[in-house]
Amino acid sequence: MSASSNPSTQDILALMLQKDRFSQWLGLEIDDYAAGYCKLHYRITDVMLNGFDVVHGGVLFAAADSAFAFACNSHGILTVALDVSISFTKSARSGDLLTVEAREVHLGNKIGVYDIRTTNEQGELVALFKGTGYRTSKPVS
Amino acid sequence: MSASSNPSTQDILALMLQKDRFSQWLGLEIDDYAAGYCKLHYRITDVMLNGFDVVHGGVLFAAADSAFAFACNSHGILTVALDVSISFTKSARSGDLLTVEAREVHLGNKIGVYDIRTTNEQGELVALFKGTGYRTSKPVS
Amino acid sequence: MSASSNPSTQDILALMLQKDRFSQWLGLEIDDYAAGYCKLHYRITDVMLNGFDVVHGGVLFAAADSAFAFACNSHGILTVALDVSISFTKSARSGDLLTVEAREVHLGNKIGVYDIRTTNEQGELVALFKGTGYRTSKPVS
Amino acid sequence: MSASSNPSTQDILALMLQKDRFSQWLGLEIDDYAAGYCKLHYRITDVMLNGFDVVHGGVLFAAADSAFAFACNSHGILTVALDVSISFTKSARSGDLLTVEAREVHLGNKIGVYDIRTTNEQGELVALFKGTGYRTSKPVS
Repeated sequence: MSASSNPSTQDILALMLQKDRFSQWLGLEIDDYAAGYCKLHYRITDVMLNGFDVVHGGVLFAAADSAFAFACNSHGILTVALDVSISFTKSARSGDLLTVEAREVHLGNKIGVYDIRTTNEQGELVALFKGTGYRTSKPVS
Repeated sequence: MSASSNPSTQDILALMLQKDRFSQWLGLEIDDYAAGYCKLHYRITDVMLNGFDVVHGGVLFAAADSAFAFACNSHGILTVALDVSISFTKSARSGDLLTVEAREVHLGNKIGVYDIRTTNEQGELVALFKGTGYRTSKPVS
Repeated sequence: MSASSNPSTQDILALMLQKDRFSQWLGLEIDDYAAGYCKLHYRITDVMLNGFDVVHGGVLFAAADSAFAFACNSHGILTVALDVSISFTKSARSGDLLTVEAREVHLGNKIGVYDIRTTNEQGELVALFKGTGYRTSKPVS
Repeated sequence: MSASSNPSTQDILALMLQKDRFSQWLGLEIDDYAAGYCKLHYRITDVMLNGFDVVHGGVLFAAADSAFAFACNSHGILTVALDVSISFTKSARSGDLLTVEAREVHLGNKIGVYDIRTTNEQGELVALFKGTGYRTSKPVS
């Protein structure tokens, strides 16, 4: 896992990101990318807040889900999210810069399992996301 | 649970929705609301898609999470999401109209558990969301 | 789903139960069984308790997991558990009689999703279990 | 987290284990223990198998749940499992020796989140368990 990124890994990411309008809307910026791995960051804006003036859980989920998708499709096999469990441990507010890191913890023939952690600028855990993806037999592109 | 909605239940919802910018951005429309219950719908638009031209999992999660928040705060006690598990069963595309129904399955002193189902216009299950909320001791407003 | 049980559904259950030593150890008794459905009960004994004199979470999980396995294998296709999320809502004590009901909420080509509820004699929810199974291409026997 | 174990941490573990009949039945052996941390091992026996001759998911869950309980009660505050999500990544058979390691990933005022991994003798991941515990205001004993 996670040999340093080769060109085709980069091509896969470029292909996915370029067409991913919701990830673009979230303002996700990729920091690092390799087979089975993705690290990105984004900044919370006002439109991402819920009625209690903290970030909507759906935004935290979405950014983690994108990192999960980038990591699990990095092998070039089209992989779809089956099940995700997320624990919310700390709230975030408008202006906060959040970092998301997705790591592969299991890669089987048909199934991959990923651990995705979102942290704030103080290094505190904001959300812990465990995702299971199903590997189809199609290529990503 | 879920006696027909009384004024204060409506007031709580109005209060939450009015300030919830991300739920507004998603275009959520409430169809029914009562203690421990919420039903809403929304339409998938292009900006909600991922790189595979299907709805981003974060959007499905977010709409279900809003229904969860509305249902678990309906009792007037500020309740925050702790843990959520979501299973994705069918993809959705731009233009699809999705319905989300949140039901309370357990209401304890400190904890509530909710079952939230998202279905498409054919009545097929798109996502199954199980959410656990922690009931603080503060009122919603 | 859940057309009234035909002989082969019964055969599948008999085959699974007969060899399932841990389900036998738990004392699971099947009450009803059909395609995509299983209802069973069992009684909590002293050896099933944890250090706080309430039932060990692993026992609640195990009985629900057996009901899940029986329900998802009922179609005759060998199906293995991929992901489970369980919420514990009420404790149970030695002597309590618990009922477990597994219902299919989605049956796809490769994936099935099940909702399994454990209740006590007062009808209170003890645990809510959501399970995703992966359907191999092999028959059960 | 996980400063080297002091006498009271050991006392808490001894107190919990001594009365925990189901953990004894599973044959759990503690290898290491500290605040927010627990490592243990056990061996799969025939009675722990399901009808497909592999370990019952309930056994994998139960051993991980015990490690979770030991880790989250290590601080001396009675903590109960609220929600758990488990992903099964590899099956195990009779005779296999499994190691379970529980790590604290978040410790809040009322909530703790733990990552528990079960591996086999080849170091392969057998199950990934994410647990959320609710910290009551009572001491463990």
